[in-house]
Amino acid sequence: MRDDLPPLIDHHCHGVVRRDLDRAEFESLLTEADGPGPLGGTLFDTRAGLAVRRWCAPVLDLPPHASPDDYLARRAGLGYAEVNRRFLASAGLDALCVDTGFNPDGLLDPGELGRLADATSHEIVRLETLAEGVAARAASADAFPDAFREALAERTRNAVGVKSIAAYRAGLDLAGERPDDREVIRAAGRLLRESDGAPRRNPRVDDPVLHRFLVWCASDLRLPVQFHVGYGDADADLRRGDPLLLTSLLSELARANTPVLLLHNYPFHRSAGYLAQVFPNVFADVGLALHGVGDRASVLLDELLELAPFGKVLYSSDAYGLAEFYHLAALLFRRALGRIMEEGVSEGSWTRDDASRLAGLVAAGNARRVYGLDRPE
Amino acid sequence: MRDDLPPLIDHHCHGVVRRDLDRAEFESLLTEADGPGPLGGTLFDTRAGLAVRRWCAPVLDLPPHASPDDYLARRAGLGYAEVNRRFLASAGLDALCVDTGFNPDGLLDPGELGRLADATSHEIVRLETLAEGVAARAASADAFPDAFREALAERTRNAVGVKSIAAYRAGLDLAGERPDDREVIRAAGRLLRESDGAPRRNPRVDDPVLHRFLVWCASDLRLPVQFHVGYGDADADLRRGDPLLLTSLLSELARANTPVLLLHNYPFHRSAGYLAQVFPNVFADVGLALHGVGDRASVLLDELLELAPFGKVLYSSDAYGLAEFYHLAALLFRRALGRIMEEGVSEGSWTRDDASRLAGLVAAGNARRVYGLDRPE
Amino acid sequence: MRDDLPPLIDHHCHGVVRRDLDRAEFESLLTEADGPGPLGGTLFDTRAGLAVRRWCAPVLDLPPHASPDDYLARRAGLGYAEVNRRFLASAGLDALCVDTGFNPDGLLDPGELGRLADATSHEIVRLETLAEGVAARAASADAFPDAFREALAERTRNAVGVKSIAAYRAGLDLAGERPDDREVIRAAGRLLRESDGAPRRNPRVDDPVLHRFLVWCASDLRLPVQFHVGYGDADADLRRGDPLLLTSLLSELARANTPVLLLHNYPFHRSAGYLAQVFPNVFADVGLALHGVGDRASVLLDELLELAPFGKVLYSSDAYGLAEFYHLAALLFRRALGRIMEEGVSEGSWTRDDASRLAGLVAAGNARRVYGLDRPE
Repeated sequence: MRDDLPPLIDHHCHGVVRRDLDRAEFESLLTEADGPGPLGGTLFDTRAGLAVRRWCAPVLDLPPHASPDDYLARRAGLGYAEVNRRFLASAGLDALCVDTGFNPDGLLDPGELGRLADATSHEIVRLETLAEGVAARAASADAFPDAFREALAERTRNAVGVKSIAAYRAGLDLAGERPDDREVIRAAGRLLRESDGAPRRNPRVDDPVLHRFLVWCASDLRLPVQFHVGYGDADADLRRGDPLLLTSLLSELARANTPVLLLHNYPFHRSAGYLAQVFPNVFADVGLALHGVGDRASVLLDELLELAPFGKVLYSSDAYGLAEFYHLAALLFRRALGRIMEEGVSEGSWTRDDASRLAGLVAAGNARRVYGLDRPE
Repeated sequence: MRDDLPPLIDHHCHGVVRRDLDRAEFESLLTEADGPGPLGGTLFDTRAGLAVRRWCAPVLDLPPHASPDDYLARRAGLGYAEVNRRFLASAGLDALCVDTGFNPDGLLDPGELGRLADATSHEIVRLETLAEGVAARAASADAFPDAFREALAERTRNAVGVKSIAAYRAGLDLAGERPDDREVIRAAGRLLRESDGAPRRNPRVDDPVLHRFLVWCASDLRLPVQFHVGYGDADADLRRGDPLLLTSLLSELARANTPVLLLHNYPFHRSAGYLAQVFPNVFADVGLALHGVGDRASVLLDELLELAPFGKVLYSSDAYGLAEFYHLAALLFRRALGRIMEEGVSEGSWTRDDASRLAGLVAAGNARRVYGLDRPE
Repeated sequence: MRDDLPPLIDHHCHGVVRRDLDRAEFESLLTEADGPGPLGGTLFDTRAGLAVRRWCAPVLDLPPHASPDDYLARRAGLGYAEVNRRFLASAGLDALCVDTGFNPDGLLDPGELGRLADATSHEIVRLETLAEGVAARAASADAFPDAFREALAERTRNAVGVKSIAAYRAGLDLAGERPDDREVIRAAGRLLRESDGAPRRNPRVDDPVLHRFLVWCASDLRLPVQFHVGYGDADADLRRGDPLLLTSLLSELARANTPVLLLHNYPFHRSAGYLAQVFPNVFADVGLALHGVGDRASVLLDELLELAPFGKVLYSSDAYGLAEFYHLAALLFRRALGRIMEEGVSEGSWTRDDASRLAGLVAAGNARRVYGLDRPE
């Protein structure tokens, strides 16, 4: 069964760095911690770090379980370009959808990633990043709604979806209704100006009205909307990243037939599975958590699939910074999905034919359908 | 061990439809989704759907894993009456407690269900449905408290318990104290009249004061109180269905020696297990989640039983609409309970005698004790 | 591997009773329930009770799975002193850190526990207990901040850490900032005086400002701070014991390099693992839950270790009252940790050398480092 798995579509990932990394830099990209500290020891002593040593070392011609120092020495010896090439090539991807909105300087762009992976690359536009750029150039708050709508239409002409990071800002407790332009203009006023009226240097979208406005603009363009949910770094207040907080908005977006993709979701992935079942427009993955938990990946996927229909679950790596994660997440996902489907066959829960068909949906079919990846471009 | 399991008592279930169903209708009853949609595909591609194909097809003389079309064709060929007869008869029930409060038209009544299952049937009265009927006939808000108390006493004369659906309405964040009649009358005023004073056509109980009043009226009649908790359809805001929200009310009901039964609980079933441990009057099940998750049922039951005493866990199918669920939930529950108890024996966690005794409590003994099902009627 | 496990450091435990117990008293200490009740049956029918019969009976020269009555008769026959001696001696501890703040009358003190366990004993000072003593003696609210600071410095001269029970009082939703003395004095005024101005007889700390003040005083003394989180008795409102509520305070304590130890955490242990990953100063255990869930202990530890680095997870028994829990928690923890590390070896997730090293961190090394247990005293 495992060998039957079709190439994956990685529906949410990022660029990887185009330079060599020392140990501190590598560890700071290895988990969601800022880096190792004197109290807690090396971040190689995590399931993520152990999985890198186990599964990535052989791609660099080292034995499995190579020590962190040996691993990093070999990585430096090969150089970042060769390292990126090897891990992207070994991911076995058919297509990837790259979120270009976070810290793109020094990261490979979607085209480069696609060439290294020998896969079709697509872009996901981060809503808040675009809005902050529009705000920095906006003549006035009054002009902001139209300016954003125009910028989004322009910027997504070749994109397959958008992403909201409301979970990192105002939180996911967003009202369902579309805000009217007067509300948006008031919120844009706070975004553009300091309280003393001076122009704001680095406008930062963290107002619920603006998050909702951005999402509804994407809905109007009939674009799928990704939401960061749950697990992330210490900047995220995880309580405000519970997907159940989105219930009202999901319900309204269902009426508009806007597909919504709940990313990561850990430790709320069972709740995400519930939402994927009861709302016709909701999809879910356990993205970031895959390479974060190593061989526990199948446990998370199994929990997501308790309620989530097989037609509603997708693959993503959420790879960022380290090319290792393209390889590692794909490998752990294939193993997890393969194990779950095989166990179902041996338990008699489903037939081998069902297993192949359902695995194909999760691996690529659902992503292809919801993002319309087969439509002519 | 599995064959030693005594007949089950299904302490929370509903009627099944008395007509044939087309594919769309069948799918709309298969999960908590309204029905299949163009984005997400068929709801047969869920653990629930796969379990129906695996475990229900043979009851209709089909091979396991029959295709959805073959299954539905055979179901239609046999006709609903024969289908209902087969699935109820195969459930292996000793008694069932039927919630008659939701959409009873076109559903089998408790007596019919009991006859098909060859089991004693009992009624569970839904508090909000009864209150809405009383409100529709009430002369005035002042008369509502007494009118409801009288109606409840009358209506539950032959019932074994009541059910609250506060989770679907005001949510479970209910204060513990019994509301006084003045508060209830004020709330009843809002229930009976529109804001312009006109009589309300379809009064809908969704005021926390009223939910609490209904529960306390049942407590005064010494009736066990079921609460819908957690997993349900999209009308439920799952965040408001967290059983921990009930903590204050459970504490007050404990003083009154009122048994409380937390239904379903997914994905909060570990919290429900905690409540069942620390409150002497609290019981829990993983009802609806059983047929919802197929062969994952044992995982949920294991999680509930981490903290919940074996004397506090019950079986329910929450079967509604499709007779399949009477068979499927009972079968999955027997397998889950049997697997857990067997694993405990082979791990050395308990003896075979303990396993039999504890399984008997969970299968039927606890329900018999808490509802007083052996008392002469 | 299991035999390789070094002696454990139990970083959070309590005294055990110094008298014989009848069945009702024993059951009331067996779980977090107040005691068995007529509705729910004996608390021996829990995973905790079954684990006592399985693993503690042999220590009293009984066969595994001895009946509750036989167990209690033998326990009474040996007498509490011999029972305490046997269970403490069999725990295999290198050191223990005893919370002396709850109901210490009639309990063995840290020195006695250490002698029976043949282990070094250390003290953990409970902040609220100390503050309530200071408040009872305080001349005025104005004097409270300095009086508490002096008392804490004095009381912790030989202690290795402190504990906050905010989860049982105001809840964990505590602002991160250090309160200034004026705020503390206002709160102390409410603590010292009834609303009519009369001195309060039994001052009870349950004000968020005071909980925060106590924690910051400990931070100033560079003491590690334990927080009760999650699972506890019915006095705890579990919703207010969610570790994610601590996010702001953890973030501020990270700046101050104050180690924080999240205790128990069930059913929020995955969230605790997340916090232990993203905050450099945060550590976690599944303490109380270990003996509470019997052979499910490895499931909980596995879930905690999904995100928590191996350098951030500790062992604690949270033993209280019954000496059995010193033995039982240690045994279940060794089995759980051994099972997890062995499975990782056989799955190929890590090497045997890694397994030994990481198990050593979790068993004792992390506690030794965070509490500075090797520093000269």
